[in-house]
Amino acid sequence: MIMEAYDRIAPHTINTPLLSSHSLNKIAQRKIWVKAECLQHTGSFKYRGGWSAISALSADEKSRGVITFSSGNHAQGIAAAAAYHDVPATIIMPSDSPGVKIKNTKSLGAKVILYDRETEDRGKVEREVNFDKSLVLIKPYDNHHVIAGQGSVGIEISKQSNKKGIKDAEVIVCAGGGGLASGIALSLEKLNPKMIVRTAEPDNFDDIKRSLKSGKIERNTKTSGSVCDAVLTLCPGEITFPILKKLCGEGFSVSDDEAIKAMVLAYEHLRIVVEPGGAVALAAALFYGEKLNNEDVIVVATGGNVDTTIFQNALMKYAK
Amino acid sequence: MIMEAYDRIAPHTINTPLLSSHSLNKIAQRKIWVKAECLQHTGSFKYRGGWSAISALSADEKSRGVITFSSGNHAQGIAAAAAYHDVPATIIMPSDSPGVKIKNTKSLGAKVILYDRETEDRGKVEREVNFDKSLVLIKPYDNHHVIAGQGSVGIEISKQSNKKGIKDAEVIVCAGGGGLASGIALSLEKLNPKMIVRTAEPDNFDDIKRSLKSGKIERNTKTSGSVCDAVLTLCPGEITFPILKKLCGEGFSVSDDEAIKAMVLAYEHLRIVVEPGGAVALAAALFYGEKLNNEDVIVVATGGNVDTTIFQNALMKYAK
Repeated sequence: MIMEAYDRIAPHTINTPLLSSHSLNKIAQRKIWVKAECLQHTGSFKYRGGWSAISALSADEKSRGVITFSSGNHAQGIAAAAAYHDVPATIIMPSDSPGVKIKNTKSLGAKVILYDRETEDRGKVEREVNFDKSLVLIKPYDNHHVIAGQGSVGIEISKQSNKKGIKDAEVIVCAGGGGLASGIALSLEKLNPKMIVRTAEPDNFDDIKRSLKSGKIERNTKTSGSVCDAVLTLCPGEITFPILKKLCGEGFSVSDDEAIKAMVLAYEHLRIVVEPGGAVALAAALFYGEKLNNEDVIVVATGGNVDTTIFQNALMKYAK
Repeated sequence: MIMEAYDRIAPHTINTPLLSSHSLNKIAQRKIWVKAECLQHTGSFKYRGGWSAISALSADEKSRGVITFSSGNHAQGIAAAAAYHDVPATIIMPSDSPGVKIKNTKSLGAKVILYDRETEDRGKVEREVNFDKSLVLIKPYDNHHVIAGQGSVGIEISKQSNKKGIKDAEVIVCAGGGGLASGIALSLEKLNPKMIVRTAEPDNFDDIKRSLKSGKIERNTKTSGSVCDAVLTLCPGEITFPILKKLCGEGFSVSDDEAIKAMVLAYEHLRIVVEPGGAVALAAALFYGEKLNNEDVIVVATGGNVDTTIFQNALMKYAK
């Protein structure tokens, strides 16, 4: 399924570069390679999964339209892919999503419905909206076509690292529900079995890290309260967790402040704009070296949709 | 020479992506493709020319060391390539170069000598420094190996645009001395003869635009006074101008403010960090549509080494 998804989406997605920097290597004391998915269309890897899922719909499903819930990156990915395929899209977003994400999703032509993530359940909101319709639900990670689309990142990592002669490596992936991490893990299991995927999450939202440790699905006690909005998911998915459990190494968690610092270092040394939630993997690689086993570490910078005020404050605080 | 340079440098350079954005296309009312050379090692295309020139030196020349002058991007390109080849590098930089460029050049291990670009002649400074030495001078653009290295950008543009089915296109290139523009023009003359290179410069430093118009080398009256430090060259080169004259279309010039606006739009919609001088081509494509002839326009975002204060002020002024 991943290879099929790759063939469908490759002509429409950006083969994002694997960047590196002398200065980041110095900080990490090893070789850090950054797969810059913030440069993907709509500013995150979610475009891949969205394209994969929508391009796999039947003509009847396309004419009915799609619905999903997302804090913003999956929202934009689905909205853009839906617009391309002329499929109506309805997106349920938390009202505290970054303004830039809500604005971009609307500007891509999707219908946006806001809900309060502290008091409302997004699944329930979806069922209510969809009660008298038959919109196709494309969940952000618990969907085989979405996972297969995200897996295309793994195919590109494999090609790019083979070219550079990178063999053994830890591949750190920012993780919310685990769709990207499981897609990449499945790709690399086949293509580069010596590479191991490890997840990165914000402190206090480290459900995957804890689930991998206990061997069963663990939940976060909160659903908001971190600047890393893109990766604040209650728990790993029902489809993704068994994959993660089988294929991934120990998970990382980093503080919001470490994510912000990593975001500023990516600006300074790679000249890319990464959002805090998209920088947790880089933060793990830079600040948790004692938990790493390889000379080469590949991190996925998963998204770049950051509100400018947050970006500005971060530069003010940490840029040299 | 370009193909040979490409073979030498390709394993060591980043095949930078050709980015695009729905929103930028909307602003320009055509398709804009951005070759993001700000993502290149050392933050600009200059790494290519530096690598090309240093890797072409004889063993004797390498042991003697190299010298050059540069406002900062060629400086970093040479410094990094020299460090890789274990060649001592001396770089003469204007004292008003962006601090980030001076700092990075030093941190790459080069010896930096500052001069005042209003009162001193950099050629003279070079001759004085090199008086009792025999350092090999690698000029920033009037050097065949440097031009050949920059031409590798044209090879990549050709491959990437063929993949996307782009045939007729204007390729707008930020230009100081014209090394990159002439290298790309030579590549495309061979590979995509239907594409035409056009240069972009800041207003009042539009020596190439005026030279192309008059048919002979014209000079700027000033050498400083624009935020676009990377492209403030007195006049086109002796090697580059005949190439530009033979192969390029009409030049563009844009205001500092338009360059700054383009820099902010690249941040917002492409999630890349471009310096003002590296954004003049994008500014031309976005704000001078009436002077463009093609549906597809490729622009090279040549560098990303911007002082954070300038970047911050630009976000404050123009980010939405």
